[in-house]
Amino acid sequence: MSPPSFVRTCVAAMSGYAPGEQPGAGARVVKLNTNELPFPPSPKVLEAIRELDAEALRKYPDPTATKFRTAAARVLSTKVPGIRPEMIIAGNGSDDILTIATRTFVPPSGVIASPDPSYSLYPVLSQIQDARHVGVAWEGDFQLPINALLQTNADAIYLANPNAPTGTIVPLEQIAALASQFAKLLLVDEAYVDFAPPGTTALSLLEAHPNIVVSRTMSKGYGLAGLRFGYAVANESVIEQMMKVKDSYNCDAISIQAATAAIGDQAYAVACWGRVCEERERLVISLDGLGFTCVPSHANFVLATVPSGSVARDLYHGLKQQGILVRFFDKIGLNDKIRITVGSGQENDALIAGLTSLIEKLKAA
Amino acid sequence: MSPPSFVRTCVAAMSGYAPGEQPGAGARVVKLNTNELPFPPSPKVLEAIRELDAEALRKYPDPTATKFRTAAARVLSTKVPGIRPEMIIAGNGSDDILTIATRTFVPPSGVIASPDPSYSLYPVLSQIQDARHVGVAWEGDFQLPINALLQTNADAIYLANPNAPTGTIVPLEQIAALASQFAKLLLVDEAYVDFAPPGTTALSLLEAHPNIVVSRTMSKGYGLAGLRFGYAVANESVIEQMMKVKDSYNCDAISIQAATAAIGDQAYAVACWGRVCEERERLVISLDGLGFTCVPSHANFVLATVPSGSVARDLYHGLKQQGILVRFFDKIGLNDKIRITVGSGQENDALIAGLTSLIEKLKAA
Repeated sequence: MSPPSFVRTCVAAMSGYAPGEQPGAGARVVKLNTNELPFPPSPKVLEAIRELDAEALRKYPDPTATKFRTAAARVLSTKVPGIRPEMIIAGNGSDDILTIATRTFVPPSGVIASPDPSYSLYPVLSQIQDARHVGVAWEGDFQLPINALLQTNADAIYLANPNAPTGTIVPLEQIAALASQFAKLLLVDEAYVDFAPPGTTALSLLEAHPNIVVSRTMSKGYGLAGLRFGYAVANESVIEQMMKVKDSYNCDAISIQAATAAIGDQAYAVACWGRVCEERERLVISLDGLGFTCVPSHANFVLATVPSGSVARDLYHGLKQQGILVRFFDKIGLNDKIRITVGSGQENDALIAGLTSLIEKLKAA
Repeated sequence: MSPPSFVRTCVAAMSGYAPGEQPGAGARVVKLNTNELPFPPSPKVLEAIRELDAEALRKYPDPTATKFRTAAARVLSTKVPGIRPEMIIAGNGSDDILTIATRTFVPPSGVIASPDPSYSLYPVLSQIQDARHVGVAWEGDFQLPINALLQTNADAIYLANPNAPTGTIVPLEQIAALASQFAKLLLVDEAYVDFAPPGTTALSLLEAHPNIVVSRTMSKGYGLAGLRFGYAVANESVIEQMMKVKDSYNCDAISIQAATAAIGDQAYAVACWGRVCEERERLVISLDGLGFTCVPSHANFVLATVPSGSVARDLYHGLKQQGILVRFFDKIGLNDKIRITVGSGQENDALIAGLTSLIEKLKAA
């Protein structure tokens, strides 16, 4: 359908973000395409939701989600001392946080730079803002291309760490080096940090580098993709500006209550992360055995180059016919790979069985 | 705190939207300041929420809230035939809808025009977009200033109908006349339409005027301010563009389920609206009796000019000391008035008793 004449040119020209497929309710699929946690959220979450009464729905929620920010500051400051609620802004998913950051820091006709490949939402956020996205190739072995990023003269650098869709991480020293040579916003998107080694997070850099914003989500590590809750941590003067840009009541009463319960149950969350990391190791070994080459991942997914003689797109479709969803990116540098979410033991077994039969058929042909 | 150097100039310069006060949980106040419904949402809403399982939280929600859009189209098309789900976009409150519309249709350095006074969020939305807001005084008796609005050369006209904070409505013929003489977006914000006479809605104009977007909220008429759910209705080619600009998963699994249940229970909603309209009439009579002059309201609030000899700001503070919250706008043309949400019978009685005692004290002084 052709865009109406009164639509902004930058919007009319763009195609929009393509989220991974969401099968309908009740569809029997093994869903390893959108990096959800393979375990339910903490039982405390459902309890917290069931405690809510009609009055909480009737009235406007707390515009700044104080309860969540207090709980999050308590948890984070056990790891990085000094994180206070005033250093946190809550969002309707980390998508909301990324949108708020873009609107707060990136002028139209500005530039957002990221290492490439990275999260495919960043170019879309740039387009909506009528800004330009510049992808800068990773240096060998996924090192941060510091100089090339600086040379883009960007208004903001968005760095996913761990990165999507590779699962790789860059050391803190590299992030610190980039932040100190860059005068604008360095957004470190830590959506997958819960599955990475301790010490991956850039939270400890905030004190020395007030241009860093760390973004987090409850979708992955806390099994709450359906709830839409994320947050950012930065110096108070930075958060203060982002607060002006967010929608007044961007988080609802239920999600504030549920996210607070989830982040409060660290024992449950940590146990889930441990199980995902174990399964990731097992999955990689099985994929290796089938002839795949996996990028060493610190996230809850694996980017696997398909064995020689097979075609990534065909494997993606073949798995789909078996009711197994993974992600295929039709892009140079990625189109010989599939991205597989680390599922439960049973799901990973189903995936490996599916791939085995597809590859055996190829060999027989 | 002074804004960091890497913040956009338009953001650094703005002060942000000031939402009405939200007293803490358990505070004993009569809350007539943010236009919530004085009744709980339909019991079907809590039932729908309690039916949700952990799996719905774990997985990403339907990115386009198909279930809600189908239910809403069914309800709306009984009033205005031809409304289809493809003509609807769901949002995280109608704030989200207004933000999406602004980003889809208003270029930075563009202009948003509105009659003045109107919803105080519109200038803030303009500032965040680095656009300019132009307020055009209402013509006598709150008629739509069509020519003056056209003369602003706006990129979009935002029209609240019923208007906030006046509660007044403009006839459909005036909206149609404006839409046909204007080539850009005419956003009709119908947040309060549920309390207005049938025939107020601009939905019936969509077929002839593809530049109209009608925005709605579940916060007021459905008692769901805490849930954050709104939607817009427009021609499919318009909705298609707005879909590209929204966050991918802007509505969560719980709110989609709850809003679907709420809009499905029209019998309950209609009964609530009727009771609010009765109470509004009773409230206006009591205010008249105390010497206030009320603008005839078609919303769930009343804008009341204070009796001569009293000061609006003082009455606002005096009520607050009694635990009764109303809204005071410190702005020329509004600073001799208070805006009172129509509460339950008991709440309205408390308000009238509070005002009576304040005014008697004034007379005695």
